[in-house]
Amino acid sequence: MKYNIDELIEKISKEVSGLKFKSEPALLYNPIQYTMNQGGKRLRPLLSLVSCQLFEGNVNESLIPAVSLEMFHNFTLIHDDIMDKAPIRRGVETVYKKWNESVAILSGDALFAMAYDHLMMYEKEQLKYLVKLLNETAIGVCEGQQMDMDFETKASVTIEEYIEMIRLKTAILIGACLKAGAITANASVENQKNIYLFGETIGLAFQLMDDLLDVFGDVTKFGKTNGGDIRENKKTYLYLKALEIAEGENLKTLQHYFSSTNFDPTEKFDVVKGIYEELNLKEITEKLMNAYYDKAQQYLKAIDVNPENKNQLIELTNNIMQRDH
Amino acid sequence: MKYNIDELIEKISKEVSGLKFKSEPALLYNPIQYTMNQGGKRLRPLLSLVSCQLFEGNVNESLIPAVSLEMFHNFTLIHDDIMDKAPIRRGVETVYKKWNESVAILSGDALFAMAYDHLMMYEKEQLKYLVKLLNETAIGVCEGQQMDMDFETKASVTIEEYIEMIRLKTAILIGACLKAGAITANASVENQKNIYLFGETIGLAFQLMDDLLDVFGDVTKFGKTNGGDIRENKKTYLYLKALEIAEGENLKTLQHYFSSTNFDPTEKFDVVKGIYEELNLKEITEKLMNAYYDKAQQYLKAIDVNPENKNQLIELTNNIMQRDH
Repeated sequence: MKYNIDELIEKISKEVSGLKFKSEPALLYNPIQYTMNQGGKRLRPLLSLVSCQLFEGNVNESLIPAVSLEMFHNFTLIHDDIMDKAPIRRGVETVYKKWNESVAILSGDALFAMAYDHLMMYEKEQLKYLVKLLNETAIGVCEGQQMDMDFETKASVTIEEYIEMIRLKTAILIGACLKAGAITANASVENQKNIYLFGETIGLAFQLMDDLLDVFGDVTKFGKTNGGDIRENKKTYLYLKALEIAEGENLKTLQHYFSSTNFDPTEKFDVVKGIYEELNLKEITEKLMNAYYDKAQQYLKAIDVNPENKNQLIELTNNIMQRDH
Repeated sequence: MKYNIDELIEKISKEVSGLKFKSEPALLYNPIQYTMNQGGKRLRPLLSLVSCQLFEGNVNESLIPAVSLEMFHNFTLIHDDIMDKAPIRRGVETVYKKWNESVAILSGDALFAMAYDHLMMYEKEQLKYLVKLLNETAIGVCEGQQMDMDFETKASVTIEEYIEMIRLKTAILIGACLKAGAITANASVENQKNIYLFGETIGLAFQLMDDLLDVFGDVTKFGKTNGGDIRENKKTYLYLKALEIAEGENLKTLQHYFSSTNFDPTEKFDVVKGIYEELNLKEITEKLMNAYYDKAQQYLKAIDVNPENKNQLIELTNNIMQRDH
């Protein structure tokens, strides 16, 4: 590989810091600058660059769509936080909380338009495929977010519906970032398809891991507060699977605790986690997560490049999934 | 002209009715369908088509960017209505009121992405100029909307700031629609620039006319309730100019009535309108409006095409401005 992961992250940071934002109107551009400069893991643009290297493309060219997709991702966070009434993101106040809803709506809209504007700096003929990719991804992510909101009030959600929701809400953007890198590297249509499907499928595994970590994660290791999903009755894979397989007293207890968000959070978490353990939900979720991981490897295997080229992407995704192999 | 105005409107209506929207998630796509099917005047896409004819282009090709810009315009209305807490638009409930804020945020976002997606059906090489035009316009419109919101709490707004706000919030989209038609007709860069400036300038005149009609308009003729701007202390040109030139008791009375939105609307309207009349505000506003109208004609004059080609655009814009000449 031409650049290692740290070098690629450095490139992204430099590119993002170099983005020029206008200063006025301040209430439009300050929230955008605030959001873009927070950092976050920059996982999505990193995937674009790693994919570009996998196909032996010029990483500097893939930086443009990579940063555009990061801008798009940040726009979705600004709007999602309004809809979810989330006060904190990345350890700081969300835009809607720090300013207000109107500011968050409008600065999000502007950042979305700026993501397209940034993409237009890519001047090669593949541009139109990159714009189409951003369009499709944006529409899909909106569908996923709407499904997620629908689930809040829907009495019964199937596992199948849940998987479709996380596919749209989070996995297709992972696929799109990888595909964008492949497009800039002039990968074949078949290879583009496979790297996209690798991303979409590993993206499902990532989300199932997130669901798992909320219940079984090590707070000191991951820095996230455990149990938010349980406290809020969030319809995750674990929640839905638990209600599917629980019986008798366990089912009654789950239904009781899932009927409100007003329980003592610690008590609720302990009881629900206890039942999840009894139901072997950790193992059941890991099994599905690993199935997606394995399916993703098949798509990766089908990609027709020097096998060594794939190592960086394998290491990065294994690292995210805390795998040693 | 190949097609008259009615035929062009018919083309737009047909194209918009033909848009295929997915059905699920219903809460994402129903509000989009609801908004797009309301109609409205379709002025913006009509300007694209008229401009395309002016430059002797193929109107059917300009339909794609025309409808894309109409989709963009409808997206901005959905989001603006949340920010302005507007319950009614085009005689029916706004999306935010009929559904809720989250639905309005997300269906707006999706419609924005769909405007780009629609534009990608334009397959000729000018596509990238159309995408850039949409980007710049979208960013500018967001700036204008933020300025408008800033004005609500700003103690003092200059006339210059007001003109810049309406330029961004409404006039540049008029310019962009005309320019889009010119781009599809392969107009020269100089001609594109002049038709854009014509649109931007006539757009300022349109907005000043709107400001005027709110106070001096004939309700039976225009169907709009008079006085909404006065009731809400909206910082229009008339409001700002009145405070600039009023003196003594008149100034005190205006300041009194502009200090709250809780006055009896009819009483407030009558008093404020009375002072506006005393201050000759109708004539003063008409003078500025006509100055923009005249300046726009200069840009139109500079456009290098068969002068007869310009008649349709002149008639259309005169019609909007209720001019006989």
